[in-house]
Amino acid sequence: MYSHHTVRAYDDELTYLTRKIAAMGGHAERLVDQSVAALVNADVSLARKVIEDDALLDEAQREIDDKSILVIARRQPMAGDLREIIGAIRIASDLERVGDLAKSVAKRVMVVAEGRQPISLFRGLQALAELALTQLKEVLDVYASRSVERIEFVRDRDNQIDAMYTSLFRELLTYMMEDPRNITPCTHLLFCAKNIERIGDHATNIAETIYYVVTGDQMPVDRPKEDKSHRVTLPADKQ
Amino acid sequence: MYSHHTVRAYDDELTYLTRKIAAMGGHAERLVDQSVAALVNADVSLARKVIEDDALLDEAQREIDDKSILVIARRQPMAGDLREIIGAIRIASDLERVGDLAKSVAKRVMVVAEGRQPISLFRGLQALAELALTQLKEVLDVYASRSVERIEFVRDRDNQIDAMYTSLFRELLTYMMEDPRNITPCTHLLFCAKNIERIGDHATNIAETIYYVVTGDQMPVDRPKEDKSHRVTLPADKQ
Repeated sequence: MYSHHTVRAYDDELTYLTRKIAAMGGHAERLVDQSVAALVNADVSLARKVIEDDALLDEAQREIDDKSILVIARRQPMAGDLREIIGAIRIASDLERVGDLAKSVAKRVMVVAEGRQPISLFRGLQALAELALTQLKEVLDVYASRSVERIEFVRDRDNQIDAMYTSLFRELLTYMMEDPRNITPCTHLLFCAKNIERIGDHATNIAETIYYVVTGDQMPVDRPKEDKSHRVTLPADKQ
Repeated sequence: MYSHHTVRAYDDELTYLTRKIAAMGGHAERLVDQSVAALVNADVSLARKVIEDDALLDEAQREIDDKSILVIARRQPMAGDLREIIGAIRIASDLERVGDLAKSVAKRVMVVAEGRQPISLFRGLQALAELALTQLKEVLDVYASRSVERIEFVRDRDNQIDAMYTSLFRELLTYMMEDPRNITPCTHLLFCAKNIERIGDHATNIAETIYYVVTGDQMPVDRPKEDKSHRVTLPADKQ
Protein backbone atom coordinates (compact mmCIF):
# COMPACT_ATOMS: atom_id res chain seq x y z
CA MET A 1 0.00 0.00 0.00
CA TYR A 2 0.99 3.59 -0.54
CA SER A 3 1.75 5.47 2.63
CA HIS A 4 0.06 8.81 3.18
CA HIS A 5 3.34 10.47 2.35
CA THR A 6 3.66 8.57 -0.94
CA VAL A 7 0.11 9.48 -1.98
CA ARG A 8 0.89 13.09 -1.13
CA ALA A 9 3.97 12.92 -3.36
CA TYR A 10 1.80 11.52 -6.16
CA ASP A 11 -0.66 14.40 -5.78
CA ASP A 12 2.27 16.78 -5.89
CA GLU A 13 3.42 15.21 -9.15
CA LEU A 14 0.00 15.70 -10.75
CA THR A 15 -0.16 19.28 -9.46
CA TYR A 16 3.31 19.87 -10.88
CA LEU A 17 2.08 18.84 -14.33
CA THR A 18 -1.01 21.04 -14.15
CA ARG A 19 1.03 24.05 -13.02
CA LYS A 20 3.66 23.46 -15.65
CA ILE A 21 0.96 23.40 -18.35
CA ALA A 22 -0.51 26.66 -17.00
CA ALA A 23 2.94 28.27 -17.07
CA MET A 24 3.54 26.98 -20.61
CA GLY A 25 0.16 28.40 -21.65
CA GLY A 26 1.01 31.84 -20.24
CA HIS A 27 4.30 31.69 -22.07
CA ALA A 28 2.69 30.72 -25.36
CA GLU A 29 0.19 33.59 -25.05
CA ARG A 30 3.02 36.06 -24.52
CA LEU A 31 4.92 34.82 -27.58
CA VAL A 32 1.83 35.14 -29.79
CA ASP A 33 1.11 38.61 -28.46
CA GLN A 34 4.70 39.75 -28.95
CA SER A 35 5.09 38.24 -32.41
CA VAL A 36 2.07 40.15 -33.68
CA ALA A 37 3.19 43.36 -31.94
CA ALA A 38 6.61 42.95 -33.58
CA LEU A 39 4.96 42.51 -36.97
CA VAL A 40 2.61 45.49 -36.63
CA ASN A 41 5.31 47.82 -35.28
CA ALA A 42 8.11 46.49 -37.49
CA ASP A 43 9.99 45.80 -34.25
CA VAL A 44 12.86 43.56 -35.33
CA SER A 45 14.44 43.29 -31.88
CA LEU A 46 11.17 42.12 -30.31
CA ALA A 47 10.88 39.58 -33.14
CA ARG A 48 14.35 38.30 -32.28
CA LYS A 49 13.33 37.89 -28.64
CA VAL A 50 10.29 35.80 -29.66
CA ILE A 51 12.51 33.57 -31.82
CA GLU A 52 14.89 33.01 -28.90
CA ASP A 53 12.19 32.53 -26.26
CA ASP A 54 10.46 29.81 -28.26
CA ALA A 55 13.20 27.45 -27.03
CA LEU A 56 11.74 27.78 -23.50
CA LEU A 57 8.50 26.20 -24.72
CA ASP A 58 10.40 23.34 -26.38
CA GLU A 59 12.19 22.73 -23.10
CA ALA A 60 8.97 22.90 -21.06
CA GLN A 61 7.37 20.33 -23.37
CA ARG A 62 10.26 17.94 -22.86
CA GLU A 63 10.05 18.36 -19.10
CA ILE A 64 6.31 17.66 -19.13
CA ASP A 65 6.81 14.61 -21.35
CA ASP A 66 9.59 13.18 -19.21
CA LYS A 67 7.75 13.85 -15.98
CA SER A 68 4.49 12.36 -17.34
CA ILE A 69 6.17 9.16 -18.39
CA LEU A 70 7.96 8.92 -15.07
CA VAL A 71 4.67 9.36 -13.21
CA ILE A 72 2.93 6.71 -15.31
CA ALA A 73 5.79 4.25 -14.75
CA ARG A 74 6.04 4.95 -11.03
CA ARG A 75 2.39 5.31 -10.04
CA GLN A 76 0.62 3.10 -12.54
CA PRO A 77 -2.34 5.46 -12.57
CA MET A 78 -5.87 4.34 -13.40
CA ALA A 79 -8.72 5.96 -15.32
CA GLY A 80 -9.01 9.65 -14.38
CA ASP A 81 -5.40 10.17 -13.35
CA LEU A 82 -4.14 8.42 -16.47
CA ARG A 83 -6.31 10.66 -18.65
CA GLU A 84 -4.95 13.65 -16.76
CA ILE A 85 -1.37 12.67 -17.57
CA ILE A 86 -2.01 11.74 -21.21
CA GLY A 87 -3.89 15.04 -21.47
CA ALA A 88 -0.83 16.92 -20.16
CA ILE A 89 1.33 15.30 -22.88
CA ARG A 90 -1.16 16.30 -25.58
CA ILE A 91 -1.71 19.87 -24.37
CA ALA A 92 2.05 20.42 -24.02
CA SER A 93 2.44 19.32 -27.64
CA ASP A 94 -0.22 21.81 -28.81
CA LEU A 95 1.33 24.65 -26.79
CA GLU A 96 4.75 23.86 -28.20
CA ARG A 97 3.28 24.17 -31.71
CA VAL A 98 1.67 27.50 -30.77
CA GLY A 99 5.18 28.69 -29.86
CA ASP A 100 6.49 27.47 -33.23
CA LEU A 101 3.74 29.40 -35.02
CA ALA A 102 4.53 32.60 -33.09
CA LYS A 103 8.19 32.09 -34.01
CA SER A 104 7.22 31.65 -37.63
CA VAL A 105 5.38 35.02 -37.54
CA ALA A 106 8.39 36.64 -35.84
CA LYS A 107 10.75 35.31 -38.52
CA ARG A 108 8.82 37.21 -41.20
CA VAL A 109 8.94 40.57 -39.41
CA MET A 110 12.10 41.71 -41.17
CA VAL A 111 10.86 41.01 -44.70
CA VAL A 112 7.43 42.55 -44.03
CA ALA A 113 9.04 45.64 -42.43
CA GLU A 114 10.82 46.35 -45.72
CA GLY A 115 7.54 47.11 -47.49
CA ARG A 116 4.84 49.61 -46.57
CA GLN A 117 1.54 47.79 -46.14
CA PRO A 118 -1.80 49.53 -45.73
CA ILE A 119 -2.70 50.04 -42.08
CA SER A 120 -5.99 48.16 -42.61
CA LEU A 121 -4.05 44.96 -43.29
CA PHE A 122 -2.33 45.16 -39.93
CA ARG A 123 -5.65 45.93 -38.28
CA GLY A 124 -7.05 42.75 -39.82
CA LEU A 125 -4.10 40.72 -38.58
CA GLN A 126 -4.36 42.27 -35.11
CA ALA A 127 -8.06 41.48 -34.91
CA LEU A 128 -7.34 37.89 -35.98
CA ALA A 129 -4.58 37.59 -33.38
CA GLU A 130 -6.84 39.02 -30.67
CA LEU A 131 -9.48 36.41 -31.40
CA ALA A 132 -6.88 33.63 -31.40
CA LEU A 133 -5.43 34.90 -28.11
CA THR A 134 -8.86 35.14 -26.48
CA GLN A 135 -9.44 31.59 -27.63
CA LEU A 136 -6.16 30.42 -26.12
CA LYS A 137 -6.81 32.26 -22.83
CA GLU A 138 -10.27 30.77 -22.63
CA VAL A 139 -9.13 27.17 -23.09
CA LEU A 140 -6.42 27.67 -20.49
CA ASP A 141 -9.10 28.97 -18.12
CA VAL A 142 -11.22 25.92 -18.91
CA TYR A 143 -8.17 23.76 -18.20
CA ALA A 144 -7.72 25.44 -14.80
CA SER A 145 -11.41 25.35 -13.88
CA ARG A 146 -12.42 22.09 -15.63
CA SER A 147 -15.70 23.73 -16.60
CA VAL A 148 -16.21 21.77 -19.81
CA GLU A 149 -19.62 23.30 -20.40
CA ARG A 150 -17.76 26.32 -21.84
CA ILE A 151 -16.10 24.26 -24.54
CA GLU A 152 -18.79 24.86 -27.14
CA PHE A 153 -17.96 28.58 -27.08
CA VAL A 154 -14.39 27.73 -27.95
CA ARG A 155 -15.52 25.92 -31.08
CA ASP A 156 -17.78 28.79 -32.10
CA ARG A 157 -14.90 31.23 -31.80
CA ASP A 158 -12.72 28.96 -33.92
CA ASN A 159 -15.31 29.35 -36.69
CA GLN A 160 -15.11 33.14 -36.35
CA ILE A 161 -11.32 32.96 -36.62
CA ASP A 162 -11.56 30.86 -39.77
CA ALA A 163 -14.07 33.25 -41.35
CA MET A 164 -11.92 36.26 -40.49
CA TYR A 165 -8.86 34.53 -41.92
CA THR A 166 -10.67 33.84 -45.19
CA SER A 167 -11.61 37.49 -45.53
CA LEU A 168 -8.04 38.58 -44.76
CA PHE A 169 -6.78 36.12 -47.38
CA ARG A 170 -9.03 37.80 -49.96
CA GLU A 171 -7.89 41.27 -48.93
CA LEU A 172 -4.23 40.31 -49.19
CA LEU A 173 -4.74 38.89 -52.69
CA THR A 174 -6.38 42.18 -53.69
CA TYR A 175 -3.36 44.20 -52.55
CA MET A 176 -1.05 41.87 -54.40
CA MET A 177 -2.96 42.45 -57.61
CA GLU A 178 -3.02 46.20 -57.22
CA ASP A 179 0.74 46.53 -57.18
CA PRO A 180 3.42 43.88 -57.83
CA ARG A 181 5.57 45.53 -55.17
CA ASN A 182 3.05 44.25 -52.62
CA ILE A 183 3.47 40.62 -53.69
CA THR A 184 6.44 39.63 -51.53
CA PRO A 185 5.39 41.34 -48.27
CA CYS A 186 1.75 40.32 -48.68
CA THR A 187 2.76 36.70 -49.31
CA HIS A 188 4.64 36.72 -46.02
CA LEU A 189 1.63 38.35 -44.34
CA LEU A 190 -0.55 35.58 -45.78
CA PHE A 191 1.62 33.03 -44.04
CA CYS A 192 1.47 35.06 -40.82
CA ALA A 193 -2.33 35.08 -41.05
CA LYS A 194 -2.33 31.32 -41.67
CA ASN A 195 -0.09 30.81 -38.63
CA ILE A 196 -2.45 32.79 -36.43
CA GLU A 197 -5.42 30.85 -37.77
CA ARG A 198 -3.57 27.61 -36.86
CA ILE A 199 -3.13 28.90 -33.30
CA GLY A 200 -6.93 28.91 -33.07
CA ASP A 201 -6.94 25.28 -34.26
CA HIS A 202 -4.49 24.29 -31.54
CA ALA A 203 -6.64 26.05 -28.94
CA THR A 204 -9.56 23.96 -30.21
CA ASN A 205 -7.43 20.79 -29.97
CA ILE A 206 -6.66 21.70 -26.36
CA ALA A 207 -10.37 22.18 -25.67
CA GLU A 208 -11.03 18.71 -27.08
CA THR A 209 -8.29 17.21 -24.92
CA ILE A 210 -9.76 18.85 -21.81
CA TYR A 211 -13.16 17.43 -22.70
CA TYR A 212 -11.58 13.99 -22.92
CA VAL A 213 -9.65 14.40 -19.65
CA VAL A 214 -12.75 15.48 -17.72
CA THR A 215 -15.41 13.23 -19.26
CA GLY A 216 -13.45 10.23 -20.51
CA ASP A 217 -15.18 10.60 -23.88
CA GLN A 218 -13.87 11.91 -27.18
CA MET A 219 -15.70 14.83 -28.76
CA PRO A 220 -17.32 13.99 -32.11
CA VAL A 221 -14.83 13.88 -35.02
CA ASP A 222 -16.55 16.29 -37.34
CA ARG A 223 -15.58 19.81 -36.54
CA PRO A 224 -17.28 22.41 -38.73
CA LYS A 225 -14.65 24.33 -40.72
CA GLU A 226 -15.28 27.92 -41.72
CA ASP A 227 -11.88 28.36 -43.35
CA LYS A 228 -12.98 28.74 -46.96
CA SER A 229 -9.72 30.34 -48.06
CA HIS A 230 -8.83 27.37 -50.28
CA ARG A 231 -11.71 28.42 -52.53
CA VAL A 232 -10.81 32.10 -52.76
CA THR A 233 -10.34 33.49 -56.24
CA LEU A 234 -10.68 37.09 -57.28
CA PRO A 235 -12.45 38.48 -60.36
CA ALA A 236 -9.24 40.33 -61.23
CA ASP A 237 -7.63 36.97 -62.05
CA LYS A 238 -9.90 36.54 -64.99
CA GLN A 239 -9.20 39.93 -66.50
CA MET B 1 1.32 -13.15 -11.65
CA TYR B 2 0.31 -12.98 -15.26
CA SER B 3 -0.48 -16.34 -16.80
CA HIS B 4 1.22 -17.28 -20.05
CA HIS B 5 -2.06 -16.57 -21.80
CA THR B 6 -2.32 -13.12 -20.25
CA VAL B 7 1.22 -12.19 -21.28
CA ARG B 8 0.46 -13.46 -24.76
CA ALA B 9 -2.62 -11.22 -24.86
CA TYR B 10 -0.44 -8.29 -23.79
CA ASP B 11 2.03 -9.03 -26.59
CA ASP B 12 -0.89 -9.18 -28.99
CA GLU B 13 -2.03 -5.75 -27.83
CA LEU B 14 1.41 -4.25 -28.46
CA THR B 15 1.60 -5.94 -31.86
CA TYR B 16 -1.85 -4.58 -32.66
CA LEU B 17 -0.61 -1.03 -32.02
CA THR B 18 2.51 -1.51 -34.16
CA ARG B 19 0.48 -2.95 -37.03
CA LYS B 20 -2.12 -0.24 -36.79
CA ILE B 21 0.60 2.43 -37.01
CA ALA B 22 2.09 0.69 -40.06
CA ALA B 23 -1.34 0.61 -41.71
CA MET B 24 -1.91 4.27 -40.85
CA GLY B 25 1.48 5.10 -42.34
CA GLY B 26 0.65 3.34 -45.61
CA HIS B 27 -2.62 5.21 -45.71
CA ALA B 28 -0.97 8.57 -45.10
CA GLU B 29 1.54 7.90 -47.89
CA ARG B 30 -1.26 7.13 -50.31
CA LEU B 31 -3.15 10.34 -49.46
CA VAL B 32 -0.02 12.46 -49.99
CA ASP B 33 0.71 10.73 -53.28
CA GLN B 34 -2.87 11.11 -54.51
CA SER B 35 -3.23 14.73 -53.42
CA VAL B 36 -0.18 15.75 -55.42
CA ALA B 37 -1.29 13.66 -58.41
CA ALA B 38 -4.69 15.36 -58.24
CA LEU B 39 -3.01 18.76 -58.18
CA VAL B 40 -0.64 18.06 -61.07
CA ASN B 41 -3.34 16.47 -63.26
CA ALA B 42 -6.13 18.86 -62.22
CA ASP B 43 -8.04 15.73 -61.17
CA VAL B 44 -10.92 17.09 -59.11
CA SER B 45 -12.55 13.71 -58.45
CA LEU B 46 -9.29 12.26 -57.07
CA ALA B 47 -9.00 15.35 -54.88
CA ARG B 48 -12.48 14.67 -53.55
CA LYS B 49 -11.51 11.10 -52.72
CA VAL B 50 -8.49 12.33 -50.73
CA ILE B 51 -10.70 14.74 -48.78
CA GLU B 52 -13.11 11.92 -47.92
CA ASP B 53 -10.43 9.34 -47.10
CA ASP B 54 -8.72 11.63 -44.61
CA ALA B 55 -11.50 10.69 -42.16
CA LEU B 56 -10.06 7.15 -42.07
CA LEU B 57 -6.84 8.50 -40.60
CA ASP B 58 -8.74 10.51 -37.98
CA GLU B 59 -10.56 7.33 -37.02
CA ALA B 60 -7.37 5.26 -36.92
CA GLN B 61 -5.78 7.83 -34.62
CA ARG B 62 -8.69 7.63 -32.21
CA GLU B 63 -8.52 3.86 -32.21
CA ILE B 64 -4.78 3.92 -31.46
CA ASP B 65 -5.29 6.49 -28.70
CA ASP B 66 -8.11 4.55 -27.07
CA LYS B 67 -6.28 1.25 -27.33
CA SER B 68 -3.04 2.74 -25.99
CA ILE B 69 -4.72 4.18 -22.94
CA LEU B 70 -6.55 0.92 -22.34
CA VAL B 71 -3.28 -1.02 -22.52
CA ILE B 72 -1.54 1.36 -20.11
CA ALA B 73 -4.43 1.13 -17.62
CA ARG B 74 -4.73 -2.65 -17.91
CA ARG B 75 -1.09 -3.71 -18.10
CA GLN B 76 0.69 -0.97 -16.17
CA PRO B 77 3.68 -1.27 -18.48
CA MET B 78 7.19 -0.36 -17.43
CA ALA B 79 10.07 1.37 -19.23
CA GLY B 80 10.41 -0.02 -22.78
CA ASP B 81 6.78 -1.07 -23.23
CA LEU B 82 5.55 2.23 -21.87
CA ARG B 83 7.76 4.12 -24.32
CA GLU B 84 6.43 1.91 -27.09
CA ILE B 85 2.84 2.87 -26.25
CA ILE B 86 3.52 6.58 -25.74
CA GLY B 87 5.42 6.44 -29.04
CA ALA B 88 2.38 4.96 -30.78
CA ILE B 89 0.22 7.86 -29.51
CA ARG B 90 2.74 10.41 -30.80
CA ILE B 91 3.31 8.79 -34.18
CA ALA B 92 -0.44 8.42 -34.73
CA SER B 93 -0.80 12.14 -34.05
CA ASP B 94 1.89 12.99 -36.64
CA LEU B 95 0.35 10.67 -39.24
CA GLU B 96 -3.07 12.20 -38.65
CA ARG B 97 -1.54 15.62 -39.34
CA VAL B 98 0.08 14.31 -42.53
CA GLY B 99 -3.43 13.30 -43.64
CA ASP B 100 -4.72 16.80 -42.84
CA LEU B 101 -1.94 18.32 -44.92
CA ALA B 102 -2.72 16.04 -47.88
CA LYS B 103 -6.38 17.05 -47.53
CA SER B 104 -5.37 20.70 -47.50
CA VAL B 105 -3.50 20.20 -50.81
CA ALA B 106 -6.51 18.34 -52.25
CA LYS B 107 -8.87 21.19 -51.27
CA ARG B 108 -6.89 23.62 -53.42
CA VAL B 109 -6.99 21.45 -56.57
CA MET B 110 -10.11 23.11 -57.94
CA VAL B 111 -8.85 26.68 -57.64
CA VAL B 112 -5.43 25.81 -59.05
CA ALA B 113 -7.01 23.88 -61.94
CA GLU B 114 -8.75 27.07 -63.06
CA GLY B 115 -5.45 28.71 -63.99
CA ARG B 116 -2.74 27.48 -66.35
CA GLN B 117 0.52 27.23 -64.46
CA PRO B 118 3.88 26.58 -66.11
CA ILE B 119 4.76 22.90 -66.16
CA SER B 120 8.03 23.63 -64.33
CA LEU B 121 6.07 24.67 -61.24
CA PHE B 122 4.33 21.34 -61.07
CA ARG B 123 7.65 19.58 -61.62
CA GLY B 124 9.04 21.46 -58.63
CA LEU B 125 6.05 20.47 -56.50
CA GLN B 126 6.28 16.85 -57.63
CA ALA B 127 9.99 16.71 -56.78
CA LEU B 128 9.24 18.19 -53.35
CA ALA B 129 6.45 15.68 -52.78
CA GLU B 130 8.69 12.78 -53.86
CA LEU B 131 11.32 13.80 -51.32
CA ALA B 132 8.69 14.13 -48.59
CA LEU B 133 7.21 10.74 -49.49
CA THR B 134 10.63 9.04 -49.51
CA GLN B 135 11.18 10.60 -46.11
CA LEU B 136 7.88 9.25 -44.82
CA LYS B 137 8.50 5.76 -46.25
CA GLU B 138 11.95 5.70 -44.71
CA VAL B 139 10.79 6.58 -41.20
CA LEU B 140 8.04 3.98 -41.43
CA ASP B 141 10.72 1.44 -42.41
CA VAL B 142 12.81 2.55 -39.46
CA TYR B 143 9.73 2.12 -37.26
CA ALA B 144 9.27 -1.45 -38.54
CA SER B 145 12.95 -2.38 -38.30
CA ARG B 146 13.92 -0.27 -35.26
CA SER B 147 17.24 0.47 -36.96
CA VAL B 148 17.78 3.87 -35.35
CA GLU B 149 21.21 4.25 -36.93
CA ARG B 150 19.39 5.33 -40.11
CA ILE B 151 17.75 8.29 -38.40
CA GLU B 152 20.47 10.78 -39.27
CA PHE B 153 19.66 10.28 -42.98
CA VAL B 154 16.09 11.31 -42.26
CA ARG B 155 17.24 14.62 -40.80
CA ASP B 156 19.55 15.27 -43.74
CA ARG B 157 16.69 14.73 -46.16
CA ASP B 158 14.51 17.11 -44.19
CA ASN B 159 17.12 19.79 -44.86
CA GLN B 160 16.96 19.01 -48.58
CA ILE B 161 13.18 19.35 -48.49
CA ASP B 162 13.41 22.72 -46.75
CA ALA B 163 15.97 23.99 -49.28
CA MET B 164 13.84 22.82 -52.21
CA TYR B 165 10.77 24.46 -50.68
CA THR B 166 12.60 27.78 -50.34
CA SER B 167 13.60 27.68 -54.00
CA LEU B 168 10.02 26.83 -55.05
CA PHE B 169 8.76 29.72 -52.91
CA ARG B 170 11.07 32.07 -54.83
CA GLU B 171 9.96 30.66 -58.19
CA LEU B 172 6.28 31.07 -57.30
CA LEU B 173 6.81 34.71 -56.30
CA THR B 174 8.50 35.31 -59.66
CA TYR B 175 5.48 33.97 -61.58
CA MET B 176 3.18 36.11 -59.48
CA MET B 177 5.13 39.22 -60.40
CA GLU B 178 5.23 38.38 -64.08
CA ASP B 179 1.46 38.34 -64.44
CA PRO B 180 -1.24 39.32 -61.92
CA ARG B 181 -3.41 36.50 -63.28
CA ASN B 182 -0.93 34.09 -61.68
CA ILE B 183 -1.37 35.58 -58.21
CA THR B 184 -4.38 33.58 -57.02
CA PRO B 185 -3.35 30.13 -58.30
CA CYS B 186 0.28 30.63 -57.31
CA THR B 187 -0.75 31.67 -53.80
CA HIS B 188 -2.65 28.43 -53.47
CA LEU B 189 0.35 26.54 -54.85
CA LEU B 190 2.53 28.27 -52.25
CA PHE B 191 0.30 26.85 -49.54
CA CYS B 192 0.44 23.42 -51.18
CA ALA B 193 4.25 23.60 -51.19
CA LYS B 194 4.23 24.65 -47.53
CA ASN B 195 1.95 21.72 -46.69
CA ILE B 196 4.31 19.27 -48.38
CA GLU B 197 7.27 20.80 -46.59
CA ARG B 198 5.38 20.29 -43.30
CA ILE B 199 4.92 16.60 -44.16
CA GLY B 200 8.73 16.34 -44.10
CA ASP B 201 8.71 17.94 -40.63
CA HIS B 202 6.22 15.37 -39.37
CA ALA B 203 8.35 12.56 -40.79
CA THR B 204 11.27 14.02 -38.84
CA ASN B 205 9.12 14.18 -35.69
CA ILE B 206 8.30 10.50 -36.17
CA ALA B 207 12.01 9.71 -36.54
CA GLU B 208 12.66 11.50 -33.25
CA THR B 209 9.88 9.56 -31.54
CA ILE B 210 11.32 6.26 -32.79
CA TYR B 211 14.72 7.26 -31.45
CA TYR B 212 13.12 7.90 -28.09
CA VAL B 213 11.16 4.64 -28.12
CA VAL B 214 14.24 2.56 -28.95
CA THR B 215 16.90 4.32 -26.86
CA GLY B 216 14.93 5.94 -24.03
CA ASP B 217 16.71 9.22 -24.78
CA GLN B 218 15.44 12.35 -26.49
CA MET B 219 17.32 13.56 -29.54
CA PRO B 220 19.04 16.94 -29.06
CA VAL B 221 16.59 19.90 -29.31
CA ASP B 222 18.32 21.90 -31.99
CA ARG B 223 17.32 20.72 -35.40
CA PRO B 224 19.08 22.60 -38.21
CA LYS B 225 16.49 24.39 -40.36
CA GLU B 226 17.16 24.98 -44.04
CA ASP B 227 13.77 26.60 -44.68
CA LYS B 228 14.92 30.12 -45.46
CA SER B 229 11.67 31.05 -47.21
CA HIS B 230 10.78 33.60 -44.52
CA ARG B 231 13.69 35.71 -45.81
CA VAL B 232 12.83 35.51 -49.51
CA THR B 233 12.40 38.81 -51.28
CA LEU B 234 12.79 39.42 -54.99
CA PRO B 235 14.59 42.31 -56.69
CA ALA B 236 11.40 43.00 -58.66
CA ASP B 237 9.77 44.20 -55.42
CA LYS B 238 12.05 47.16 -55.31
CA GLN B 239 11.35 48.30 -58.83
